[in-house]
Amino acid sequence: MAADLIRVTYRIECEGDVAQMASRIASDQSTGTFTELPGETDDIRRRCAARVESVIALPPADHPSFPHSGTGGPVNRGDAVIAYPLDAIGTDFAALMTITVGGVFAIRGLTGIRVMDFDLPEAFASHPGPQFGIDGSRRLTGVAQGPIIASIIKPSLGLAPDETAHLVAELCEAGVDFIKDDEKLMSPAYSPLSARVAAIMPVIRDHEQRTGKRVMYAFGISSADPDRMMRNHDLVADAGGNAAVVNINSIGIGGMSFLRKRSRLCLHAHRNGWDILTRHPGLGMEFRAYQKIWRLLGVDQFQINGIRAKYWEPDDSFVRSFHDCMTPIFSPADRPLPVVCSGQWGGQAVETYQRTGRTLDLMYLGGGGIHGHPMGPAAGVRAIRQAWVAAEQGTTLETAAKTQPELAASLAKFGGDAA
Amino acid sequence: MAADLIRVTYRIECEGDVAQMASRIASDQSTGTFTELPGETDDIRRRCAARVESVIALPPADHPSFPHSGTGGPVNRGDAVIAYPLDAIGTDFAALMTITVGGVFAIRGLTGIRVMDFDLPEAFASHPGPQFGIDGSRRLTGVAQGPIIASIIKPSLGLAPDETAHLVAELCEAGVDFIKDDEKLMSPAYSPLSARVAAIMPVIRDHEQRTGKRVMYAFGISSADPDRMMRNHDLVADAGGNAAVVNINSIGIGGMSFLRKRSRLCLHAHRNGWDILTRHPGLGMEFRAYQKIWRLLGVDQFQINGIRAKYWEPDDSFVRSFHDCMTPIFSPADRPLPVVCSGQWGGQAVETYQRTGRTLDLMYLGGGGIHGHPMGPAAGVRAIRQAWVAAEQGTTLETAAKTQPELAASLAKFGGDAA
Repeated sequence: MAADLIRVTYRIECEGDVAQMASRIASDQSTGTFTELPGETDDIRRRCAARVESVIALPPADHPSFPHSGTGGPVNRGDAVIAYPLDAIGTDFAALMTITVGGVFAIRGLTGIRVMDFDLPEAFASHPGPQFGIDGSRRLTGVAQGPIIASIIKPSLGLAPDETAHLVAELCEAGVDFIKDDEKLMSPAYSPLSARVAAIMPVIRDHEQRTGKRVMYAFGISSADPDRMMRNHDLVADAGGNAAVVNINSIGIGGMSFLRKRSRLCLHAHRNGWDILTRHPGLGMEFRAYQKIWRLLGVDQFQINGIRAKYWEPDDSFVRSFHDCMTPIFSPADRPLPVVCSGQWGGQAVETYQRTGRTLDLMYLGGGGIHGHPMGPAAGVRAIRQAWVAAEQGTTLETAAKTQPELAASLAKFGGDAA
Repeated sequence: MAADLIRVTYRIECEGDVAQMASRIASDQSTGTFTELPGETDDIRRRCAARVESVIALPPADHPSFPHSGTGGPVNRGDAVIAYPLDAIGTDFAALMTITVGGVFAIRGLTGIRVMDFDLPEAFASHPGPQFGIDGSRRLTGVAQGPIIASIIKPSLGLAPDETAHLVAELCEAGVDFIKDDEKLMSPAYSPLSARVAAIMPVIRDHEQRTGKRVMYAFGISSADPDRMMRNHDLVADAGGNAAVVNINSIGIGGMSFLRKRSRLCLHAHRNGWDILTRHPGLGMEFRAYQKIWRLLGVDQFQINGIRAKYWEPDDSFVRSFHDCMTPIFSPADRPLPVVCSGQWGGQAVETYQRTGRTLDLMYLGGGGIHGHPMGPAAGVRAIRQAWVAAEQGTTLETAAKTQPELAASLAKFGGDAA
C-alpha cells in the first residue's frame, strides 16, 4: 500500500530551472542543510524525503516578483507539485505550515513563490471542521431557502452599546436574518463586549417574542488571549446568543483551534490580513489553499467579498473563492456558508447568482446599502430580497425595479457603477 | 492630558497623492464605509477617528509593488504615521492587528503598503514579555559571559529518538551550551515528543552529573492545538527540561499568548513564515514592527539569521533585526536573546561583532558548521569559540587560525565564500 502523502502545489518563479528549484525546496524542507552530513542515511531519506511529483511550465514573467532579485528579469515560472510523506509531518497544522510553507519562502534564488493548493490525505478529516456550516446556519436563522440576508452595524467603530442596540432594533424591524459587529469591533473601552451583549440580546429576544423570528447576531469575540476569547464566547452563549465574528488571522491557528473545541457558537470568519498573503499574484498563498486550513479548523461562515467589492479584489478572484468554499474537502459537511459582502446592496445579485453556480446557499451582507437606503433600512433589506428574487427568476434588475420602488431607489442611489 | 495614542508607520505606495491615501487609511480603519451614514456623528469621530500625523515623501518607484495595478508606474511613495486612539483599540493584539494592519492591505488604489513600525503606548507594557530573555538564558545555561554557543540536530528530520540522543551526547561532549530540535521537528510518528524527551533528558542529566554543566535543550513543542502544546510543554518541563522551540507564525498569536501565560520553559522563537511578510520590500511588514508584538507576547530567544545566512536575507537586514531586538520597548527586560543562525560556522563572528554593537549578548547557532567539521563536532565548537575570541580581541580569523588548528580547518572547509 502506498504511503499517505501531503501534496502541495507551488507556483515557483526563478531565474534558473524551475524543476531544479522544486527539487531544492523538497530537499530543504525535509533533510537538507548547507553541507553534507555524516548522519544523513538512505533510511532517513526514505522516511522523510519530500519528492517532486510534477512540474508544469508557465510562460516566463517580465519582472521578478521579489524586485531587485537576480538580473531583474525575465524569469521562469512553473507549477510544481511536491509530495511530503504524511508520516514525516502528521496532521498538526503547525507542522504542515512550518514544513510546507514557512521555510519555503526563505529559500535563496527564488524570485517569487506562491502556495496554490494543499491536497490533504484522509487523515486530516480528523480535524473538527465546521460545527454548523451551511445547514446549521439555515437552522439557526430559520431561513430554509434563499440567501440569508445580513447586515452589519455601521459606523463600524464608535457607537456606545445602547446606540448599537438601537440600530439592532431597527435592523430587526427591517427584516434581516443576521446582524454582525464590524470585524474591527471587539471589546474596546467605549463598548465592552459584556455591555454590548447586555444591550443587544434583549432586543433580539424581544423581536423573537413579538414576531417569532430569531435574528442571528454575531458578536466580535476575538482576542489574542484564548482564555479571554473563551470568556467572551461564554458571555455571548450564556446570554442566549448563537454566533460570533472571529478575526481568524489575528487570533491565529492556535486561537481558532482552541475556540472551536469549546465553541457553542456559529463562527463567522473575517479574513482581514489575508490580503497580505494573496494580493501579489506571484507571492504568498492562493485562497484555495488558505481556506482549507480554516475550514478544517472549524469556520462555519466565511467572508469572501463579492462582485464589485469596495476592496482591491477582482471579481474573478471572488468567484473562485466561492467555488472553493462550495467544494467539499472530505465531505459536504466541511463546507462553510459563503458570506458575500463588501459594497453589496443587491445590484450584484444577478451576476453573483449567475457566476457562482446558481446557488442560493449563501449569506448576502449589506452594510451601507441597507443603512444608507434613501427610504430607510427596511426598504434597503426589501430591495436586496427583490434583487435576489429577480436573480433566481432570470429577470433583470431594471425590469424588477419597475414594480418595486425599494429596488428602484437602490438602483438610483447605488447603481452608478453597476453597469 | 493628551489621550494615549498607538502610532503606526506605513510605507505607502500609490499612483495618486500619498497624503490623501494616508487619510483614506485612517478613515477606513476607524469609522468609514462606502457611503455617507446618518449615524456617523462628530462624537463618534472624536472617540474613534484615526488621524494622519505626518507624511514624509520618498522617491517614486519605477514599478508598482502590486503588479498590474494602475498604469504600471511610476508610483509615488511616502512614509505616513497614523495615530489611533488607544481607547478605540485597547491593548489586545487581535484588535491591534485587525484595525491597524489586517484591513489596510485590502484598500483599493494602493500599489504597495508595508507596516514599518508600531509605537505603542505604555499600556502595552501590561503584556507579559519575556520570562527569561537575555539574563534568564545566561542563568539557565550557566554562561555568564561571551556568546552562548549553540547547535541544532542535523539532519533536521528523520532521526529516531535514540539516534537523536546519540547526537545530543556527541554535542554535549563537544562543549555546546545549547542544543535544539530543528524547527521542522515537532512530534511526528517516527519521533514522538514523549519518546524524544525520554531519550534525550537522561543524556543531558548524565552530562551534567559528570561535568557540572547543564546543556539547555530546546524541544520542538509547537502544535496548532494549544492544549496539545501545553501537554508537550509539560512533558518537557516535568522531565527537567528548560527550553522549547516555538514556531511562532504557525501557532499564531493565540497559541503564543496561551503558552506564555502557563510556561515554565525558556521559549526559543523560530520565525519561519516571516519571509512571506517581509521579503518584498514594498509589501508586508518590517521586522522592527513584527518583533515588538512577539516580544511582548513573551519570546525569550529570537532567531534572526546572521551574516552570510544561507537564506535570501541580506546582511543589512540581519543587522537591523539585531539592533531591533536589543532596543528596549518599555524596559531592558523586554529584550529577547538574539539568536544568530543560518549557515554560521564562526567565519562570520568578527563581522557580526563589529556590526552589532560589539556585544556578546547573543546566541550563536551552528548546524552544519559543527556537525560537518572535518575534525569532528568538538573541533567545530572549539573553532567557533576561537573565532569569537578573535572577534573580541580584534584579531583576524586568519591570524587566529595560525595557532588554532580547529579554526584553521573550518576556514579551509567553509571559508570559500567568507572573503
